[in-house]
Amino acid sequence: MRNAKEGRITKEMEIVAKNEQVESEFIRRGIANGRIIIPKSNQRDTDPLGIGEGLLVKINANIGSSKRVCDIQGEVEKAKIAVKYGADTVMDLSTGVTEEDVKKIRSLILSETKIPIGTVPIYQSALRAIEKKGAIINFDEDDLFNVVKEQAKEGVDFFTIHVGVTKEIVNYLRQHPRHMGVVSRGGTFLAAWILENDLENPFNKNYDYLLEMATEYDFTLSLGDGMRPGCIFDSTDYAQVQELMEISKLVKRARDKNVQVMVEGPGHIPAHEIERNIKIMKSVCDGAPFYVLGPLVTDIAPGYDHLVSAIGGVLAGLAGADYLCYVTPSEHLALPNKDEVKRGVIASKIAAHAVNIAKYGKKASNWDYKMDLARKNLDWEEMIKQSIDPDLSRETHYRNGNIDDDVCSMCGEFCAIKLLKDALDKKALKKEF
Amino acid sequence: MRNAKEGRITKEMEIVAKNEQVESEFIRRGIANGRIIIPKSNQRDTDPLGIGEGLLVKINANIGSSKRVCDIQGEVEKAKIAVKYGADTVMDLSTGVTEEDVKKIRSLILSETKIPIGTVPIYQSALRAIEKKGAIINFDEDDLFNVVKEQAKEGVDFFTIHVGVTKEIVNYLRQHPRHMGVVSRGGTFLAAWILENDLENPFNKNYDYLLEMATEYDFTLSLGDGMRPGCIFDSTDYAQVQELMEISKLVKRARDKNVQVMVEGPGHIPAHEIERNIKIMKSVCDGAPFYVLGPLVTDIAPGYDHLVSAIGGVLAGLAGADYLCYVTPSEHLALPNKDEVKRGVIASKIAAHAVNIAKYGKKASNWDYKMDLARKNLDWEEMIKQSIDPDLSRETHYRNGNIDDDVCSMCGEFCAIKLLKDALDKKALKKEF
Repeated sequence: MRNAKEGRITKEMEIVAKNEQVESEFIRRGIANGRIIIPKSNQRDTDPLGIGEGLLVKINANIGSSKRVCDIQGEVEKAKIAVKYGADTVMDLSTGVTEEDVKKIRSLILSETKIPIGTVPIYQSALRAIEKKGAIINFDEDDLFNVVKEQAKEGVDFFTIHVGVTKEIVNYLRQHPRHMGVVSRGGTFLAAWILENDLENPFNKNYDYLLEMATEYDFTLSLGDGMRPGCIFDSTDYAQVQELMEISKLVKRARDKNVQVMVEGPGHIPAHEIERNIKIMKSVCDGAPFYVLGPLVTDIAPGYDHLVSAIGGVLAGLAGADYLCYVTPSEHLALPNKDEVKRGVIASKIAAHAVNIAKYGKKASNWDYKMDLARKNLDWEEMIKQSIDPDLSRETHYRNGNIDDDVCSMCGEFCAIKLLKDALDKKALKKEF
Repeated sequence: MRNAKEGRITKEMEIVAKNEQVESEFIRRGIANGRIIIPKSNQRDTDPLGIGEGLLVKINANIGSSKRVCDIQGEVEKAKIAVKYGADTVMDLSTGVTEEDVKKIRSLILSETKIPIGTVPIYQSALRAIEKKGAIINFDEDDLFNVVKEQAKEGVDFFTIHVGVTKEIVNYLRQHPRHMGVVSRGGTFLAAWILENDLENPFNKNYDYLLEMATEYDFTLSLGDGMRPGCIFDSTDYAQVQELMEISKLVKRARDKNVQVMVEGPGHIPAHEIERNIKIMKSVCDGAPFYVLGPLVTDIAPGYDHLVSAIGGVLAGLAGADYLCYVTPSEHLALPNKDEVKRGVIASKIAAHAVNIAKYGKKASNWDYKMDLARKNLDWEEMIKQSIDPDLSRETHYRNGNIDDDVCSMCGEFCAIKLLKDALDKKALKKEF
């Protein structure tokens, strides 16, 4: 960010500009004013990726073990599956079984992928607190910052830190409970710690120290939404919006110190409240890149929350969200398996792509153009190739044995495209692609 | 509609009013001015269902055999699966293998379900033309109307008829081709017939006769969008909008004859064009109930078009669409199997529910409220029960063997809800539901 403010276009800015089909100066100016970020540690050879205003909407996939399910190689494979199906970044949210397992998973993901990798460092602090001090919230200020520093040295590109979870908000919530309380894990650890110790959130109190560390290792801060609504009835309430107001001040302080920063957003939000959430965030945070978790527009669809989240993601993206965190079909039920990671990524990719078509036209819709040309020509092999999931398309199309045929089993001889092809003047009703 | 215009509240209006939690007079007035319909044949004991302005958004599932795949009992089972997972209506789009098969399927669906059933009668005319006259478009005017009459006598509640496919539009398309031509099957049959015979669309030319028949059997007309875009690049073009203009005149003529009428809409539309499509239709058709097919916001996701359509359905519903036609995961690839019918219905139901929460608040979100209460209490059996797909929720949650446990394998001991429950003053951060 310092380079950008001082007018220098770095190699990373040039790569992002090329990938986005924009001028390098556009990227430089966006980084200088904080509306674009390139999350990339100076400790790791990450492929540069731009996120923010005027750039294609990006998607993130969360992977990671839990205390109940931990398969180290399996998590690394999930990260690779996520990349294969189009995740732009991966966050490793491992929480188990042991701190050693978590370190091993992170180390493998950092070395075996090239995309930006993020973490929520307080998870490791909490795990260490369980192992060394007997309970999740038995961490002190140093324990929190030590883990951030350890992970920064390993080359993690961005950190979700719930700096906006303040003592004031937590005490307000104690007096004025909401329906679902706090559902952010990091937010809960900090809320519980604040109540237990009657002290301010250490990340908030020592924010300048965090910014110094960010400058040293060039990691990007993702200001976590610890107060995100855990059900549609808590949406856009005091706790959520007040945390956003706190975050807006933190964004300014980070930019003043040349630290790249993005803001995380909810959560469970009814469809009609999404646009206002995105727009108020963009206003009060002066156009900072907005990273949304979901949003989920209904609570009744466990097993289908990837789809619920794709709906919310499109509404958010159309309103200005820059970066969508996927949700898998097993959200609210279980740790996702590999197939669910794949389906989560595809759902989120579809959402981002739909927004990119709406916002950027041909730059995004060229993919659709190729698919439509194949459809017009009833070229099934090309349709399969252009599909977001070629294996599934192939399996579905050929399951009724219609190999070497130009129609599918949906319409058969009633195929509208074939009928026009065969019955009408072939040139008359068709435009050349 | 005559009853409504003359101020009489029928039994059907009362049932709809009760189901929708509105006054009977609201329904009567809506039917009188054509903004609400109750598609119900006078030949069948259909459960009354209201569709239109001020009512909950409804969903339709298409089932039906093709020339390539025909399992008569299987199609009836699909209809029952659709009803089980929340379809408000079913359209039987059977096209094969023989006319006898198609009649058998329709007869079973009409007798074994109570929801409104719709068809596209020209499919049977086309099938008869193949069997009796050697080619799909070898039908004459009488052949078309005879099938409508036969099906009306059987008690079909609503018919999709592509009355708006005019000679003018077809000739325009011949001169000014679009990317994907015509992808509506019924629309293609009529377009091909018009070009072959150089005559006006028989349904358009003899529209008054169709309206007389509708009055006799009390079926509802669904004015089909034969010119719906078949790819995002044909969206909102001359053919589509000009057909809508023709349809707007036909809506008025139907209402003048006391025939209930709704309007079908596209199709493949980029996300940012959906709202304008819904609003222009509502304007020019004076608030007629709008029945949308999709819309599909990208063309690159065969295998996931149920999800693509759920995104479009929410955008359409928020803009005012009243009735969503589902799309299954196998759209553009194959005839859907039973599991795909189920997933298509669930996707569409989620979309309609998300819109209903946004439009009607508690009337719709009471379901979410029950789910959230179960979540807050970590009551897994109740969460499963409240899920849109309880079988899937159960299988996913218990697959890691965590029976008799209060957390799930996603977070394990890191469960934010449990942590708050255990570590904090239990009453402090929780609001009583």
